[in-house]
Amino acid sequence: MTDKAFQDYSPDHLAHCYGCGKLNEEGHRIKSRWEGDESVARFTPKPYHISIPGYVYGGLIASLIDCHGTGTAAAAAYKAEGRAMDSDPPRRFVTASLKVDYLKPTPLGVELEVRGKVKEIKGRKVVVAATLLARGEVCAAGEVVCVQVPDEWFRKA
Amino acid sequence: MTDKAFQDYSPDHLAHCYGCGKLNEEGHRIKSRWEGDESVARFTPKPYHISIPGYVYGGLIASLIDCHGTGTAAAAAYKAEGRAMDSDPPRRFVTASLKVDYLKPTPLGVELEVRGKVKEIKGRKVVVAATLLARGEVCAAGEVVCVQVPDEWFRKA
Repeated sequence: MTDKAFQDYSPDHLAHCYGCGKLNEEGHRIKSRWEGDESVARFTPKPYHISIPGYVYGGLIASLIDCHGTGTAAAAAYKAEGRAMDSDPPRRFVTASLKVDYLKPTPLGVELEVRGKVKEIKGRKVVVAATLLARGEVCAAGEVVCVQVPDEWFRKA
Repeated sequence: MTDKAFQDYSPDHLAHCYGCGKLNEEGHRIKSRWEGDESVARFTPKPYHISIPGYVYGGLIASLIDCHGTGTAAAAAYKAEGRAMDSDPPRRFVTASLKVDYLKPTPLGVELEVRGKVKEIKGRKVVVAATLLARGEVCAAGEVVCVQVPDEWFRKA
């Protein structure tokens, strides 16, 4: 139970996102969990996720930060309300704005770590700051402004 | 000849990017061209590039804007120097910073259009403003800060 990732709590009809949906067999299916006050996801890119030889392409890095951000926002919303992620009402988020600074080339062939910190929770908005690390070095830093989705999204099967 | 895309001018050893490399068979292989003062790329996402049912996941949108941005930066650098893209010395760019505002959900199942405008060229830096449209409606807007890669990158086979 405690090993369940944030994304494992998504209802099936909202679990197809290419970046983080547990039911998208073509996708990245990232898994984010709390480690203390930070959220962490680990992901090893495929050889074809290349930019220049030896390095990861920027779109994947943006995608990892984006989906880890919205997952963290959902988990943070439950945490702020003192509730478990399988309790009602459900809380899920989409991205309003994404910013990524590519600080150094991200090596291909190693596991990447995306770490998130909640910067702000206000009404239906959660802002998550994220870093992406390879071999313990920060290669990219970003910010995801997340907005809670309408309750109607949970009313269909 | 005039129908060649910006990405078609990349030397083979720099043509493997998942987003825009002409030699990456798993990748998006986007093609960007001038249409007047704007650069345009068109791309139809696959059904598995889903976020919530019916819509495109944000990471793909970020990737399209990113790679279209660096391609536009390269083309703009040649243009500013009054040279063709197959002339020497070569000009290629990587992303220093990417910002995407997701203005409305991007529908899946239709061709997307990414349009770029050069906002600034200064030294080795080019800033490209981009919009992403579906059915003529702007769904996302972004900015890509691009930096010219070192000349050494072109010295290997």
